[in-house]
Amino acid sequence: MMAHWMRRLALASALLALFTLGAEAGADPLPSWNDGPTKQAIIDYVTRIAKEGGPDYVAPKDRLATFDNDGTLWVEQPMYTQFVFAVDEVKTQANQHPEWKTKDPFKSVLAGDMKAVAAMGEKGMVEIVAATHSGMTTADFDQTVRQWLATAKHPRFKVLYTDLVYQPMIELLDYLRANGFKTFIVSGGGVEFMRGFADKTYGIPPEQVIGSSGVTQYGTWDEKPVLIKVPKVLFVDDGPGKPEGIEHFIGRQPIFAFGNSDGDKEMLEWTAACEHLCFMGLVHHTDAAREYAYDRNSDVGKLDKALDEALTKGWTVVDMKNDWKTIFPPAKSGSK
Amino acid sequence: MMAHWMRRLALASALLALFTLGAEAGADPLPSWNDGPTKQAIIDYVTRIAKEGGPDYVAPKDRLATFDNDGTLWVEQPMYTQFVFAVDEVKTQANQHPEWKTKDPFKSVLAGDMKAVAAMGEKGMVEIVAATHSGMTTADFDQTVRQWLATAKHPRFKVLYTDLVYQPMIELLDYLRANGFKTFIVSGGGVEFMRGFADKTYGIPPEQVIGSSGVTQYGTWDEKPVLIKVPKVLFVDDGPGKPEGIEHFIGRQPIFAFGNSDGDKEMLEWTAACEHLCFMGLVHHTDAAREYAYDRNSDVGKLDKALDEALTKGWTVVDMKNDWKTIFPPAKSGSK
Repeated sequence: MMAHWMRRLALASALLALFTLGAEAGADPLPSWNDGPTKQAIIDYVTRIAKEGGPDYVAPKDRLATFDNDGTLWVEQPMYTQFVFAVDEVKTQANQHPEWKTKDPFKSVLAGDMKAVAAMGEKGMVEIVAATHSGMTTADFDQTVRQWLATAKHPRFKVLYTDLVYQPMIELLDYLRANGFKTFIVSGGGVEFMRGFADKTYGIPPEQVIGSSGVTQYGTWDEKPVLIKVPKVLFVDDGPGKPEGIEHFIGRQPIFAFGNSDGDKEMLEWTAACEHLCFMGLVHHTDAAREYAYDRNSDVGKLDKALDEALTKGWTVVDMKNDWKTIFPPAKSGSK
Repeated sequence: MMAHWMRRLALASALLALFTLGAEAGADPLPSWNDGPTKQAIIDYVTRIAKEGGPDYVAPKDRLATFDNDGTLWVEQPMYTQFVFAVDEVKTQANQHPEWKTKDPFKSVLAGDMKAVAAMGEKGMVEIVAATHSGMTTADFDQTVRQWLATAKHPRFKVLYTDLVYQPMIELLDYLRANGFKTFIVSGGGVEFMRGFADKTYGIPPEQVIGSSGVTQYGTWDEKPVLIKVPKVLFVDDGPGKPEGIEHFIGRQPIFAFGNSDGDKEMLEWTAACEHLCFMGLVHHTDAAREYAYDRNSDVGKLDKALDEALTKGWTVVDMKNDWKTIFPPAKSGSK
């Protein structure tokens, strides 16, 4: 009985594989990418590592791909989205914090003086993020993030931030998953902020989102267990923190990684040291008309040393202007 | 063409589902569990949450299950396996550390005086673990763990430690995965130690193993990127650290959790607060003849407050002696 059932199962599986293969061969998996060497490099890579019996074959269980988020999967200009959220939260929570009216960086935020905030540098940014990302339960924070993302609009494009993801990268994530990859985000951004949209927006579940994290404390409120976000950094997932975060959260090396800034350099180096044929990619923002053009001199998403390393070592560099047919997904009804 | 292909794919999928269903209905998914209320509680739970259209249905993407490791999935007596490994490593590395001959706790370990080591309590244990779990690359540590696990034998059972996993729990992991669950380990043990065997032994990949972790530092050795394990604790995944670790690594609540000691109490409470129908289980070690019998007064795997809470709240308590038909997997040739 069992043997008979197994034969039938094997037959059905084989048929299923055949149908799926047929579909893949027929359709372009990356329709928003212009034909050319960049698109070809991606398709060649995936074809080689997926070819059973081929010299570069990688078993599906080892097909891990890691992606930076800001500037790699969605827009990061003119200001990191999570920081825009934090600034909005300062305004929302101001009436509960009368002391903010006379204390910087909050005072400048409330006065709308973002130049003064920028002049305070990283210290001011960290204070703003710490104040708005702690002192509540994880569930309440998640709710706040979701509400903000459902309403806040980008200053230039006038659409939701989640509409400003890169359609070519969404197709790349889908293409990799269709070829057996497990996809992860590895970002300097706050992990709980990203988990508020990564599943719906990128198809990446919370446990595959890696980012900078704060400490939480378990306790009970009204006899119900809760986790409280406290203003203490647990882990910074940027620069050398990216391979360290990959080890901490994933425990093995990716074979495919994509970033867009110097903060991704060490993740790409770590990926390049993988045991298999590896793929390292950078998104180069070269399209001021449709998105933004910036690299070596940008405050946000500076791309300098990593670009040099990519050019020296032959990593794939996406020229946004020439390689991407479209930048953003087709407009959704009701999102504007 | 596409529509035709999709119809054929749908047909093949339906056939596949039918065959799989047939197999499940026919076979006992938990053959090493004696029939009775414990086994029935597990099967009833899984059947209810998997029944589409039923009142307790949970979508597959939300079916997360977390398991403690020591004492829940494998033997933890007479000493946590990772600590046995650390003690063996002190002996192996002693010739590189002449200072250990005169310095406790190392001196006592080298003299084989485990009573003296035990008398030093947690402080001594932490020193031994820190000294043997840092100062090397993550790749070298992984290699050392794998070599040790391939040869070290348990003092009572005289087999490899990985042969001392609980067969009924292996079946439970398989049963949950066959019903769409994603299975995780959430243990106080060191994450890199567990990742050395969890994939092969439990079918749980490294990125689904959560545990206590040390800091690693990215750098280059001979121009190759490496991660160095440094003697600094990053995260302790025990007691309240378990729900905190679940948030940190997974970012959402499990609906099913199993533990065996007071260190699992908060994980079970956190699971009990899930939005769906939840399952909380404890392994109670009641079988001195086939394994061990211990609970409220044990130094290793103390089960006291969590047992009271389980009895009060109606969580499932496995009586190892009566509920488990067999304890360990059938002996593998070559493993003795």
